[in-house]
Amino acid sequence: MRAYDLEVCFTPRLYPHLEHPDFIVVAIDVLRATSAITTALDNDVEAIIPVSTVEEALEYQAKGYKVGAERNGEKVEGFDFGNSPYDYMRDDLKGETTVLTTTNGTIAIEMAKDAKDVICGAFVNLSAVVNYLKERQQPVLLLCAGWKGRYNLEDALFAGAVVKELAFSGVFQNVADSALSVQYLYEQAREDTNKFLHNSSHRKRLAKLNLKEDIRYCLSIDQTDNVPLLQDGKLVRA
Amino acid sequence: MRAYDLEVCFTPRLYPHLEHPDFIVVAIDVLRATSAITTALDNDVEAIIPVSTVEEALEYQAKGYKVGAERNGEKVEGFDFGNSPYDYMRDDLKGETTVLTTTNGTIAIEMAKDAKDVICGAFVNLSAVVNYLKERQQPVLLLCAGWKGRYNLEDALFAGAVVKELAFSGVFQNVADSALSVQYLYEQAREDTNKFLHNSSHRKRLAKLNLKEDIRYCLSIDQTDNVPLLQDGKLVRA
Repeated sequence: MRAYDLEVCFTPRLYPHLEHPDFIVVAIDVLRATSAITTALDNDVEAIIPVSTVEEALEYQAKGYKVGAERNGEKVEGFDFGNSPYDYMRDDLKGETTVLTTTNGTIAIEMAKDAKDVICGAFVNLSAVVNYLKERQQPVLLLCAGWKGRYNLEDALFAGAVVKELAFSGVFQNVADSALSVQYLYEQAREDTNKFLHNSSHRKRLAKLNLKEDIRYCLSIDQTDNVPLLQDGKLVRA
Repeated sequence: MRAYDLEVCFTPRLYPHLEHPDFIVVAIDVLRATSAITTALDNDVEAIIPVSTVEEALEYQAKGYKVGAERNGEKVEGFDFGNSPYDYMRDDLKGETTVLTTTNGTIAIEMAKDAKDVICGAFVNLSAVVNYLKERQQPVLLLCAGWKGRYNLEDALFAGAVVKELAFSGVFQNVADSALSVQYLYEQAREDTNKFLHNSSHRKRLAKLNLKEDIRYCLSIDQTDNVPLLQDGKLVRA
């Protein structure tokens, strides 16, 4: 069976089962890793090294890197910052290479590192991602980071926003059911994504942590035209 | 983290990762295994033994059982029937115990066999399934059979039809994003599910095989009030 040109993988747990040797993978963790990474590059952070474990993050910190670490929505004690996009709107990070580990997003990025290309997508760079994919004319896999291996609504919703622009662009001949599905979801939600996500599990989790400002920012479309691209283990501007 | 009261598992590949010791699992393979199983019991087939492999099915055939086997949408050569619901509307199967293996549905059923309870759901027994779950007041996992490990639209849609009736029934306190998501999908599709599924991969696959009559039947709601329940390895009327 031929692989799909445009497909959504709803959790990193399904990723190892898929065959996509020439696919561009879009890693998606809207709340908040890929929003933060995109914002960081927009604020002139030179590069971000994504790592999966706190242990790896500690090793980089010992070498003198500034390191962000988040688990369960909160900054891990002892690190320089968490995964709020606001953590990266600072002058002292300009030109720096930083390191980041998060509960879901950085795991998805690392998992996909052997794909043809890995980029980061979020509402804050939606149009930039869509344009990048249209220009590249390669098969696309939208990889939702989800929450600890489970499906989550906001990542699926962003995938739907991308599919909506790509599915009938003529570039992709073979659109998987997963992609059709999130497109329908986005069509229902686009008027007011914040309201749509009101009952979603991670939105509730972050609201409890008093991160409503983060949520609002992460759901705002096209704040930047940066597309983070994984190159030699570092996320840099594409 | 507490497991969700109401959750959807989009493919059997994710099932082993979930913890749900006291969950009722609803196995869903709308096109066509769970539709056929429900129809068979409605037509007085006594019991159906679901098996995962063609080899197991052959062993049962050698013992004298009538055996259905489907792979890739088609009846496997040498077996008595496939997985069309119409295959089970026959007088000679009344009172019989038959055997069935299919590409996706019977794999999902077997995988869940250690759950508290496993029932089969499809549009043809939608209300019966909903009523069963409301009465039982147990946590529910809707297990979509999908297509060879991938997400498929019609199973998600049926899951959405169930969630729509259960999510705000007051019985389930903790509704996962996966469940919210399919509910939105169903709300968009319910007016005309056949049209909604027009671009879905398996509907196209079956239409190519000239099985449009099967599709129409499998999407027709409440043809029976039978709920197939797995008991000692056999699906029987609950």
